Parts: sequence; structure tokens; C-alpha cells
Amino acid sequence: MTEFARIASLARLFGATRAHGVELGIGDDAAVLAPQSGERLVWTIDEQVEWVHFRSDLVDWHDVGWRSFMAAASDLAAMGARPWCALAALVLPADFPDEALFALAAGQQEASEAIGAPLVGGNLARGSAVSVATTLLGHARTPVRRDCAAAGELLWLAGDLGLAAAGLRGLLGGVVDSRLDAALRAWRRPVARIDAGLTMAARASAAMDISDGLVQDLGHLVRASGVRAMLDVARLLEHGGDCLAQAAAAIGADPLDLILEGGEDYAIVAGSSSPLDGFVRIGEVVEGEGVFLRETAGERRVEVLGFDHFRKL
Amino acid sequence: MTEFARIASLARLFGATRAHGVELGIGDDAAVLAPQSGERLVWTIDEQVEWVHFRSDLVDWHDVGWRSFMAAASDLAAMGARPWCALAALVLPADFPDEALFALAAGQQEASEAIGAPLVGGNLARGSAVSVATTLLGHARTPVRRDCAAAGELLWLAGDLGLAAAGLRGLLGGVVDSRLDAALRAWRRPVARIDAGLTMAARASAAMDISDGLVQDLGHLVRASGVRAMLDVARLLEHGGDCLAQAAAAIGADPLDLILEGGEDYAIVAGSSSPLDGFVRIGEVVEGEGVFLRETAGERRVEVLGFDHFRKL
Repeated sequence: MTEFARIASLARLFGATRAHGVELGIGDDAAVLAPQSGERLVWTIDEQVEWVHFRSDLVDWHDVGWRSFMAAASDLAAMGARPWCALAALVLPADFPDEALFALAAGQQEASEAIGAPLVGGNLARGSAVSVATTLLGHARTPVRRDCAAAGELLWLAGDLGLAAAGLRGLLGGVVDSRLDAALRAWRRPVARIDAGLTMAARASAAMDISDGLVQDLGHLVRASGVRAMLDVARLLEHGGDCLAQAAAAIGADPLDLILEGGEDYAIVAGSSSPLDGFVRIGEVVEGEGVFLRETAGERRVEVLGFDHFRKL
Repeated sequence: MTEFARIASLARLFGATRAHGVELGIGDDAAVLAPQSGERLVWTIDEQVEWVHFRSDLVDWHDVGWRSFMAAASDLAAMGARPWCALAALVLPADFPDEALFALAAGQQEASEAIGAPLVGGNLARGSAVSVATTLLGHARTPVRRDCAAAGELLWLAGDLGLAAAGLRGLLGGVVDSRLDAALRAWRRPVARIDAGLTMAARASAAMDISDGLVQDLGHLVRASGVRAMLDVARLLEHGGDCLAQAAAAIGADPLDLILEGGEDYAIVAGSSSPLDGFVRIGEVVEGEGVFLRETAGERRVEVLGFDHFRKL
């Protein structure tokens, strides 16, 4: 199909979903929206690139569509925002099959329905490798930033840590083991913690999403807030539970390493002095700087570990 | 530099620009915005890909940044919207030099200042080829769609047609000729017709931007509106003038072919029964379908000509 025949087919696929305030969707130079009055807009963009974020031989296109949409949605979740609508820019090789494109689009559409944010426009271009850029708008009355955590608060977590990384390592290593089932699902079909984000919005002082590893992402939060994070190792391992322990055993990894360094979790970490529904307690915010672990043996600082696209190794 | 050192440097570059209603810019999970009440939001995304939209051996990175921003801005211009702010997602090879990144970013920043829309966030990722995805939000009281042109109106044009295509052909062919200077400038530094878009917004029935060739893009407008476009060849050539004639001669091309098929003009074509400031008259809207040329010899239909990312040739 030509570019414009593809756009027409995608418009039919995505055009079935209606959303409040969307006055003009796919098919013009731009989408037209009427924002909710009295609310802030929260706006993000994320991009997933073949051979970096996924290998097309290890993941199906439906999952690529789902994952790319959820990765962007996770940014909104971490701001305490309600997703509204999305645009996507796809880069596809000249010989990319129509069936693969429509599988990818079906994954986007499924994720978009799961979080209630229709795709209202986008762009198609040719390129040597597949990439999916997703931009999402959300509404929030009081967006939760990352720079307002204060000493004396507790640290809270919504979602799993380390499972997705275990799944990816299993995939890359060709490990076939039923103890990895939940981990593979976590990597292939991550879920943005929208409901947890909305619940926390009224009470959290600060929050961010964990997509590049807990220590690295929490490092951004404590640096922005001018505080120290003290993580409770026993609570982290307890939250990981048997599911993470089994997955770690299947790939010969340490569950704590997966928790601290593993990426693509799309969990939310938040600071708050009172409990947050849907979150578990994983530590506290204290004076100082850096990310520390509290173990039975004592406290120790952990250096930034996690994914960086341009770090020289 | 690592991903996060680069983000910190880019935040300093882009953070200097303030815009009304931008409450939180680069540095969190998402940007936070307070939209103008009583106005519609107009939202677009565009992506420019190395080896498809530009060759890094023929263009400098500053121009890549400028062009990618203006290409997205042109969509807002064609909707009659006032640009507000932008996000950009960059894909860069692992060995992409810091200087090239900051030249690209300086080009984005210069374009962003030229149209008054600061860059308030984005994403950096690694990939095999450079790509720049730009999403822009604008405000409009009455966005101008492409599906409301009516028979009996006149067709109006703001901006040049064919010059950018002449410049690109000259570059690709290695032509060194001073008659191409304006054409090279048009290709390297296109300008979104924001002011013309704002002027037309109150009076145009329909509009769209011409980025993939006049006949192809106008074809979308007439199909969406259920009308026929009758282009006046003498007026088109007169508007191209000596500048286009000289550039066409330098590359051995027909000026009319450049006007009808040339891409990356970022001009605006609009339908309106009364004159539009900053626009010239290039034809009329009549009953029927398709795009026609009126020449001294008579009228003839022209088939869709122009750029398509996935057309099989």
C-alpha cells in the first residue's frame, strides 16, 4: 500500500474511538482539541527504536505497538495525569509488510483503549529501521513533579520492579523456562500505572516513573529534590516475591540486582508522608543526597546503575 | 556525553525561552501547560529521517534542526493556528558527535524563536540513523480544516512553490550555479507561513500545507471537500517568476513541473471567496473532482504527482 492508502486504513482503525474534547482526528494537517477547563495539560513524547528497544525477531509487532504506547503513558501516570489522546509518528523500512504495520497499529489501538486515550493523528515516514514515537496529552488538576520530595517522607512504589528486565534477559539468552512466564509478560505487555497515578496525585509530594532502572531514576528524583533516598532492601525483595525470585533463578541473576538496575518496569515511585492506595512502602526520604540501601548489615550508597543510551562502557 | 549530561545541556539551551502558559518545561516526566481558555488546541507531529528527508553529507546539522521544526510548524500554519510550544524526540547513532547534536539543537532553537514556540521537553534515544520527530501545539479560535472548500470560491497561495525542489535537485546533482542560491536557501531554511495562516483563519473555507507537491496535496483537499481544483497555469508561473525560472534553468527542469510536483515547499493553499492578505490567486474551486490545469490550450486533468514514502515506482 502507498503512504496515503495506509493512512486511510489506519484512520478507519483508530477513528472508531471517540474521546471527549476531540473535535478533529486523523485526516487533516493537525488534530483539533477542546481542553478541559480548569485543568492543566500534561504532555510527553517517547520513542521506541528497533535494535535498541526491541528486536523484531524476539517480539511481535502487536507487542511493539502496545509497548511503545504504554511507555509514553507511563510518563503521564507518574505525573498523576488522566490520559486524553495521542499522536504517533512511525518510521518503517520500504519493504515493511502491510500485515506487520496493521499488527503494530492494533497493539497501539489496544493500549490506547486500555488507558482511554485515542490516537487522533500521526505521521508515516520511510527509514532503515522501525521506530515508533508516541506523544500523549493528559489532564491533571495538580500534576506531581519530581523535584518536591522532602526529608521525613516515606517512599512508595506502584508496580513491579525487575521482572521486565528478567524477561528481556531470558529472551536474549534464549532461555525456555516456565518460571519466566510472568517476566516475559511484564516485558512484552507493560502496563502504565494510570490508576495508581491518579490515586497518588492528591497526596504525593513527588513522583516519577521507573523505566531506566530504580537506582538511576530515583537518582534523578533525589537530585531534583535535594534529598537522599534510603531504600529498604527487605521490603523491595518482599515486594518482588516468589515471582521475581523464580524468574531470577531461571536466568541465574540476583533478584536485588534486577530490582535496582532492571529497566522498562514502568512502575511509579512516589514520596508521601501518608500511605498511598495501590502503593507499597519501599523506603524513606532523608536529608542528604544520593540513593542508599538499608540492609541488615547497615547502610551503603549505590552508584547510578541503569540504562543510558549514550554512556560509554 | 551520556544521555543525561546531554539532556542537562539541552535543558540549558532551550530553557532560556519562556512562553505564556508553560508551567514546567524540560526535566520531568512530562511538561505541564495551562492552555488559553476559549481557544481550540491544534496538535501535530512530523518526523524527518536521515537518508530520506536529508543526507548528512549535503546539509549541516543546524539546517536539519531548523527544517524539522519548520516542517511541523507548517501544519499549524495551514490550520490557522498560533504556535504555542513543542516537544522533540531525537534518534542519534551511538557515535553521533556532541557538536553535531548541539548544532542540530541550535537550529531547532532558532526556528522555535522565529515562530515563538519554545521547546519544552523531548526524548533522546540511540538508533542507526538520525531522526527528528517534532510535535507542536498551537491555539486557534477557528481552526481551518481541509474538507470545507466549496465550488465558486477562489484558490489562494502563500509562499513559494517548486523552489525547494529545485534546490534539492541541484544539491543531489552537485550543480554549482549562483542561479540556484534562492532555491538552496528555500530547501535548507524553509519558513512556516504562520502570519499568512493567522490572516487567512477568519476568512478561508479550507486550507492545507503543501509539503508533498501541489497536485498531490491539493488532491487531498479536493477529495476531502468533494470539489475540483482548477489551477491557472499562467498565474502559477507568474508567481514563480524569474527566481524559479532561473533555478529551473540551472538544473535543466521545467518550472511548471517543479511547481506541480516539487515537495518541501511548506506553502499554504486556501479556498476563499474573498482575497486573503499575503496570498496570491492561483485558481478556483469548481464542481467535480480532481485537480485540473487551465492553460491557453484548454483544460486538462493532472494525476497525483508528488512524494509518497511507500509508493512502489
